[in-house]
Amino acid sequence: MFSPLIEELIRALRCLPSVGPKSAQRMAMYLLEKDPEAASLLAHSLAQAVERVGRCQQCRTLTEEAICSLCDNRRREQDSLCVVETPADVLAIEQAGNYHGRYFVLHGHLSPIDGVGPADLGMDLLEQRLATESLRELIVATNPTVEGEATAQYIAERARVQGVAVSRIAHGVPIGGELEYIDGGTLAHALNSRTAFFPGS
Amino acid sequence: MFSPLIEELIRALRCLPSVGPKSAQRMAMYLLEKDPEAASLLAHSLAQAVERVGRCQQCRTLTEEAICSLCDNRRREQDSLCVVETPADVLAIEQAGNYHGRYFVLHGHLSPIDGVGPADLGMDLLEQRLATESLRELIVATNPTVEGEATAQYIAERARVQGVAVSRIAHGVPIGGELEYIDGGTLAHALNSRTAFFPGS
Repeated sequence: MFSPLIEELIRALRCLPSVGPKSAQRMAMYLLEKDPEAASLLAHSLAQAVERVGRCQQCRTLTEEAICSLCDNRRREQDSLCVVETPADVLAIEQAGNYHGRYFVLHGHLSPIDGVGPADLGMDLLEQRLATESLRELIVATNPTVEGEATAQYIAERARVQGVAVSRIAHGVPIGGELEYIDGGTLAHALNSRTAFFPGS
Repeated sequence: MFSPLIEELIRALRCLPSVGPKSAQRMAMYLLEKDPEAASLLAHSLAQAVERVGRCQQCRTLTEEAICSLCDNRRREQDSLCVVETPADVLAIEQAGNYHGRYFVLHGHLSPIDGVGPADLGMDLLEQRLATESLRELIVATNPTVEGEATAQYIAERARVQGVAVSRIAHGVPIGGELEYIDGGTLAHALNSRTAFFPGS
């Protein structure tokens, strides 16, 4: 119904996550009718980002520099490393605000069924860092899914071999959550992982 | 937190309708991590569309041609013209499937408070078409809002001056709708606009 270029734009917009045909059409109409300047800016920004953004040589997060600003920041604790699955996880932990060490981004999790092995997750680079840097602690913050747990297990084993202390972030009832609405799996885990009220006694 | 180019991309993505900071971040991460090819295609498609898509010289809908495919289609009824507010309205009416005439797109409605007058809606072009083409009927399909009604009224007056029959699409209870859930304004309109069951008698 629309002209070829508009149809093509609508199709291209559907590559965005959770954008279906109706939303894509609405976006295309909005951009072309109301805000062509913003559309140009978006086109330019996308092209630039795709061309120039790569991975940090140290932590593999997305950045257009060789070394990202977090790795480059000498004021961050150099002796703790937190392993996460995605760059968005780095942001989430940074926003939590109580971790001041460095990161390592896997860009996924071990998943033999999808052909994702240790090499795809930069495990060689991680092992090299475990071997050469004097790390006090490696914190594994992969997601609490089956694959995330398997990945955590794998990383923990590698760190133990290298003699680095490894920890896993806690999983349980979210702060402010109500027990009534928490799923059984989480609750079972929270019970199993209970901590002593008075650790000393 | 992210590198400058990624921050810029996130900001640019927020120009899309109903995309907030979280969605924009998710879209940026998705495009850069999972689908850079689709991102490149989107960038190219956006740039092309912004550069080349303009308005049809006859009906003002969005198209990269001088005359859009609907205006150019000789098999469509040449003697009826349907006036709508946006190109998306053209699509909606085409999908309804029972109108086979041509269109005229206003790209908005009369709105003195926003400085939108007849000239911005291409009224001169519409009047010229009313004067020069032998139209049997002008169907006004602007939205049933205050501004849409005012615009319809304005267009109807102009058409009457030119001696062209004008009609307004019907407004009332949607087909399949339940009276219980219809707002009072629509229901009042539906009662006022009731039609005789046996028009002949």
